Amino acid sequence: MAFGWIDEQASARRRAGLVRTLRPRPADSPLLDLASNDYLGLAHHPEIIEGAAEAARTWGGGATGSRLVSGTTELHGELERELAAFCGFEAALVFSSGYAANLAAVTALAPHGSLVVSDAGNHASLIDGCRLARGTTQVVEHGDPDAVRKALGTAKGPAIAVSDTVFSVDGDAAPLAGLAAACRAYGAGLVVDDAHGLGVLGDGGRGAPYAAGLAGAPDVVVTVTLSKSLGSQGGAVLGPAKVIDHLVNAARTFIFDTGLAPAATGAALAALRLLRREPERAARAREVARALHTRLTASGHEAVRPDAAVVSVRAPSPDQAVRWAADCRAAGLAVGCFRPPSVPDGISRLRLTARADLTEGQIDRAVGIIGDTRP
Amino acid sequence: MAFGWIDEQASARRRAGLVRTLRPRPADSPLLDLASNDYLGLAHHPEIIEGAAEAARTWGGGATGSRLVSGTTELHGELERELAAFCGFEAALVFSSGYAANLAAVTALAPHGSLVVSDAGNHASLIDGCRLARGTTQVVEHGDPDAVRKALGTAKGPAIAVSDTVFSVDGDAAPLAGLAAACRAYGAGLVVDDAHGLGVLGDGGRGAPYAAGLAGAPDVVVTVTLSKSLGSQGGAVLGPAKVIDHLVNAARTFIFDTGLAPAATGAALAALRLLRREPERAARAREVARALHTRLTASGHEAVRPDAAVVSVRAPSPDQAVRWAADCRAAGLAVGCFRPPSVPDGISRLRLTARADLTEGQIDRAVGIIGDTRP
Ligand SMILES: Cc1ncc(COP(=O)(O)O)c(C=O)c1O
Ligand SMILES: Cc1ncc(COP(=O)(O)O)c(C=O)c1O
Repeated sequence: MAFGWIDEQASARRRAGLVRTLRPRPADSPLLDLASNDYLGLAHHPEIIEGAAEAARTWGGGATGSRLVSGTTELHGELERELAAFCGFEAALVFSSGYAANLAAVTALAPHGSLVVSDAGNHASLIDGCRLARGTTQVVEHGDPDAVRKALGTAKGPAIAVSDTVFSVDGDAAPLAGLAAACRAYGAGLVVDDAHGLGVLGDGGRGAPYAAGLAGAPDVVVTVTLSKSLGSQGGAVLGPAKVIDHLVNAARTFIFDTGLAPAATGAALAALRLLRREPERAARAREVARALHTRLTASGHEAVRPDAAVVSVRAPSPDQAVRWAADCRAAGLAVGCFRPPSVPDGISRLRLTARADLTEGQIDRAVGIIGDTRP
Repeated sequence: MAFGWIDEQASARRRAGLVRTLRPRPADSPLLDLASNDYLGLAHHPEIIEGAAEAARTWGGGATGSRLVSGTTELHGELERELAAFCGFEAALVFSSGYAANLAAVTALAPHGSLVVSDAGNHASLIDGCRLARGTTQVVEHGDPDAVRKALGTAKGPAIAVSDTVFSVDGDAAPLAGLAAACRAYGAGLVVDDAHGLGVLGDGGRGAPYAAGLAGAPDVVVTVTLSKSLGSQGGAVLGPAKVIDHLVNAARTFIFDTGLAPAATGAALAALRLLRREPERAARAREVARALHTRLTASGHEAVRPDAAVVSVRAPSPDQAVRWAADCRAAGLAVGCFRPPSVPDGISRLRLTARADLTEGQIDRAVGIIGDTRP
């Protein structure tokens, strides 16, 4: 019988207490939200909502086709120009998701005979990009420029190093300067995923590569998502114009995918413009993260010092993590819960996101609930 | 120097006349559109636009997180229930794109030790799904159930056959009944991509699997996109509830991707409701396609008989195809132009899409321009 093997996997998952179920949220949820990636609190901002609505009115409900056929509107061009300029790169290309942008960047920049050196903590989309790429992948220890250097030394053709700038599970930052130096020593390209850096790190939220002095470098390519700080959906690749032209011609998730919907494009553009006008939002998100971390560690929790807006708190076991998150929810607080197989090291944790628009009172309340429900 | 190899590829592309460039379109394009995949003419329908705007107002600019953390709203649940019911399946799961839905379905249903039998004409996203899957892929001749049967006979573990229902390049339909029979003879699952069938084929646009009597079958899984007939963005997988539960737990492009933006979800839901109320739109799209085909072949063009709403017209060579499409555009008609490497057989063609809202006069005009500009 087709799909019979699924039943066995489902029972194994049940026995291990690792079943995931969807919990649709209502529009007027009373929960205090520390689970979403809406770092700047823009997803519900009136300007972003109007950006989405106005774009739908002007350009329709969908892009109607691949970017190379009918799916490129002038609005896509505007977002690409403004995003590239904001982050300090020559050109940008917008995708339907950050996932698709990562698949595109890695596959198109790792041709047959090339080497991809990939950090062990990289996001699933980068890993899938490595798997799809024609080049050979070498996975190196997390956050280790020396390991990258050593791996690049074995390259026999074109090479790239690939890393998140801020790792999504623990919120720790990659050693970008060290990675860039390692790449330059070998003439390799550096491809970094700034999903959790854009809008949070760098001057006014220009991102981790900007903060590291790598913006506009001819050997650096950055991917971002429009779905976190910018409160919308979609992704983008930023880099030298010739790399962007190459992606237009070679990246399958660009060529064979419908263009990003106008509403998402318009919402992201509105968020970017708002961020340019209110650059202090980026610093505030970092400040909230540090405040959360300080108060949580002061009350005895094991939390990783946040380099951006993600605060990760260790839990004793997968089911205690699940129960802890459920107890927080019951007490009015939404937090993320990461556990195997979504964590590279097998350690379960609560994942808190520091929104720029959290008040001191809300931070206190969150810390209080996390302490009260501690397993 | 990093990325130096790109220059060589770019020159080779220029020499071969195969450079692709983006052409942003204005909001008020005067062109008659036969290039988009907006088969039912819904992308600019006021109800769809209001569906997008209203969803953004109620739910915000983005889903704010992965579907398993904060990214599932009640709106996603509504779309999933209504889409599953409409197409006749037990359950549905919405993704940020049809591309992501295809990656999810193929990878999650092709575990280690399994066999995937894949039609040679399949869409890039199914092919990438095969490449990412842990199972082994065997590519079989286009549209050949006997070849599928033979390949399935070699399976040593779980097996699936994978096919587009309507192939995007030529618009020809897959032999679904034959494929289902082949799969059933071997206890294999059938996974079909109804991107170009939903909204066009089957009673009131319920899709090709519904038309073939396969809706709700325990061994059939269907993927769709929300970006063509439904005028929005996103994708979905439809099938038995246990398969959908499995995807929630195992599909990386579901677990590690931000949920579909509320505006896109709302637009697709509005389109689906409109289609239920106005089922004649589906038949009209097919009628327009037949009319285009009849008139084009009558005037001596080599066009493939359309099984859905895609009409493919052969061009003598890649550069003549490009020039033909450019001449159509200069004369006021937007058509698609498919050429290597985006065509499996190396044959270039104009690709016309039959929109349900084309008038007889517009059909005449399109056929006239295509004839006048013929190379
Ligand atoms: C580091 C990282 N990269 C990429 C992505 C994917 O971006 P998107 O959700 O826009 O597909 C995510 C999360 O979703 C992420 O955390
Ligand atoms: C057959 C087929 N499957 C899947 C897709 C991908 O869908 P989406 O554009 O929603 O990613 C497309 C086209 O875009 C397609 O033509």
